[in-house]
Amino acid sequence: MSAVVTEQETVREGAFGNAVALSCRECGGRVELGPSYACPDCFGPLEVAYDFPAITREDIAAGPANIWRYKALLPVPADIEESPNTEPGFTRLLEAKNLAAELGLARLWVKDDSTNPTNSFKDRVVACALSAARELHAKVFACPSTGNLANAVAAAGARAGIRTVVLIPSNLEQPKQVNSAIFTDSLVAVEGNYDDVNKLAQEIAAEEEGWAFVNVNVRPFYAEGSKTLGYEIAEQLGWRLPDQIVIPVASGSQLTKVHKAFQELVKLGLVEEKPYRIFGAQAEGCGPVATAYKAGVDAIRPVKPDTIAKSLAIGNPADGIYVLDITRSTGGAVEQVTDDEIRAGIVLLARTEGVFTETAGGTTTAVLKKLVETGQLDTSLETVIINTGHGLKTLDAVSGQVGPRATIAASYDAFEAAGLA
Amino acid sequence: MSAVVTEQETVREGAFGNAVALSCRECGGRVELGPSYACPDCFGPLEVAYDFPAITREDIAAGPANIWRYKALLPVPADIEESPNTEPGFTRLLEAKNLAAELGLARLWVKDDSTNPTNSFKDRVVACALSAARELHAKVFACPSTGNLANAVAAAGARAGIRTVVLIPSNLEQPKQVNSAIFTDSLVAVEGNYDDVNKLAQEIAAEEEGWAFVNVNVRPFYAEGSKTLGYEIAEQLGWRLPDQIVIPVASGSQLTKVHKAFQELVKLGLVEEKPYRIFGAQAEGCGPVATAYKAGVDAIRPVKPDTIAKSLAIGNPADGIYVLDITRSTGGAVEQVTDDEIRAGIVLLARTEGVFTETAGGTTTAVLKKLVETGQLDTSLETVIINTGHGLKTLDAVSGQVGPRATIAASYDAFEAAGLA
Repeated sequence: MSAVVTEQETVREGAFGNAVALSCRECGGRVELGPSYACPDCFGPLEVAYDFPAITREDIAAGPANIWRYKALLPVPADIEESPNTEPGFTRLLEAKNLAAELGLARLWVKDDSTNPTNSFKDRVVACALSAARELHAKVFACPSTGNLANAVAAAGARAGIRTVVLIPSNLEQPKQVNSAIFTDSLVAVEGNYDDVNKLAQEIAAEEEGWAFVNVNVRPFYAEGSKTLGYEIAEQLGWRLPDQIVIPVASGSQLTKVHKAFQELVKLGLVEEKPYRIFGAQAEGCGPVATAYKAGVDAIRPVKPDTIAKSLAIGNPADGIYVLDITRSTGGAVEQVTDDEIRAGIVLLARTEGVFTETAGGTTTAVLKKLVETGQLDTSLETVIINTGHGLKTLDAVSGQVGPRATIAASYDAFEAAGLA
Repeated sequence: MSAVVTEQETVREGAFGNAVALSCRECGGRVELGPSYACPDCFGPLEVAYDFPAITREDIAAGPANIWRYKALLPVPADIEESPNTEPGFTRLLEAKNLAAELGLARLWVKDDSTNPTNSFKDRVVACALSAARELHAKVFACPSTGNLANAVAAAGARAGIRTVVLIPSNLEQPKQVNSAIFTDSLVAVEGNYDDVNKLAQEIAAEEEGWAFVNVNVRPFYAEGSKTLGYEIAEQLGWRLPDQIVIPVASGSQLTKVHKAFQELVKLGLVEEKPYRIFGAQAEGCGPVATAYKAGVDAIRPVKPDTIAKSLAIGNPADGIYVLDITRSTGGAVEQVTDDEIRAGIVLLARTEGVFTETAGGTTTAVLKKLVETGQLDTSLETVIINTGHGLKTLDAVSGQVGPRATIAASYDAFEAAGLA
């Protein structure tokens, strides 16, 4: 593990807000806040632990219309808004009456993270990682990625004025390369697949001093950013929890953090305690958690991904076991859908609610539909689905599905003759 | 002009909020609120006139984080939030310290409308047009467009559950077609260029009953949506006006509406009166207003557009004369830049602030730079620029400009050898 903090430097008081330690999810052991991600005793994953003061709804409502309204609940300093960042979050929570009617649901909402600064939920986690990198005096802000994360890191790094290095597989589609290279002159193409790129990132993190890899050595801080999705949903519902929520599963981190957020809000007295069910959404081409869920087992067997939902294509999901635990204990489920169902899910969400989602959101929408059709979801209860990214990033998935209804000459007669009047 | 309201139907009380009439910008004559856009006496353009009640900052702050927080200042009913719409607006106002330093400006902000629901400011105007269409009992919600407007209309129509027809030139790039067709099964490709499509739209509007063309017969309502850019900038600056603002000019409507918004805020006592200078930004390949400005004349000579800034490519801008008037009377200017400067402007904004803009925003950024370099802008004053759309929509403009810094083997040695460590 790299020493992000060089020996000459110290971390300032309050650098991580109300966070007090990193705590092991397996053995509960605690280590000092810093660039660590695995428990020194049992190698379990570390997550941020807090000592929260009293926090009121009014305190939060008085904050800005971005994730920093929840800064007291995140591992960031009280003056976080003064450091340049992309100011993500507080995205739309849309009541989805058309989609609800289509599927026979009593009440449905879409939390739409496609309108974040670089058009995915990754802006939330990267903003928290950036704060940690800054407070730990990192010299370089970096990540291995194939898409959404690369965009978010490159943009946040540019705005923060920190040297940014983004590693991608060299065969990545050109549009995705442009969408990162526009922000940084240090986009590095690596010969190999994403696993090769990821391995190289781990090696660099171990060799170099002062490199903060958002999803490697500052991962515990990074992952906390996903809690803001949970906070926002509760606040935007009028400070209450939904009955059911459907969340896409890649590493599984987001699902576990939304659950953590709901639990924190209850403990802080910001929402009333109530039962809620959490559902996970995967693609059949990469459904290791769904497979384990259906088999009723705890062990997750890694798979080799083969799906159009590339942002969900993690074959060996780090938080998979926690996803199983949360979905089972809350009375939810983990379901999976085919690539054709994903494409249909993208079109369904667009046609009913005017939201253009990427393949991950198509997966979530298709899984919602399947959960209803198979009776796993209670249609009489209030449900939320999370749209994690923008359809403009995965245009190819649907470009063969939709197009003009007709091509006509530029005259009213032609318009009428085509049956359009 | 079409009769959007059919004979059997009446417009409900309060359908247009505090709006009281449509008023002619030329002769000042007034006509009843309805689907009219030209003065029956002098053929001048009509705009919405209001009788505002007292409105406080607190009233506005208590509203939602979208344009409806300003509903009392728009031609929409008090219950507008209950009708499904895309909930646009309240986008980021980013302080741009890096870009300010790069250009030698004391203080600079970027109003970033690329994070709107369909990633351009058009969601604002379309939301207001949709409300008018609804209140006037329109059966069809339509537009002629080549890009951003098509996306916004198709998405808003889907969510509203109203029949939507979007007319585009048949030779439009496939990604732009997909980005509209995803929302509607009534995308219609018309053989010809944008002017042909536009002419057909006017014909349909005249022939058909119940068709609301957002930028034709409900244009006065539509255009009011741009005022929210001005309101938001003032509120996000802490309820004060900037000293200088740079706004892209296509039809010129947005610039005139931001000015109108600032004037209204002063009249309502929501901000202090102060001098401010408004600057317009055009591309050299379509700079009829800039040309007239520089020549010191009032008459705008139409041009045939030839620029990569396609969303600004209106050769005969309807509000050009008002842009001349406002920029001259406030001490601003209208400047134009080349396509190469536009491309450089896109990269400059991305690299300094992490904001990926389309060609229109590249134009605005490049014009800002040129205004500084030519001494037309006072660098000691606080300045705002408006980014009207997302770079993902005009990827081709920069895909030849940016890319990976290096392609390396997947090993630390290769990484080091490439000078990246």
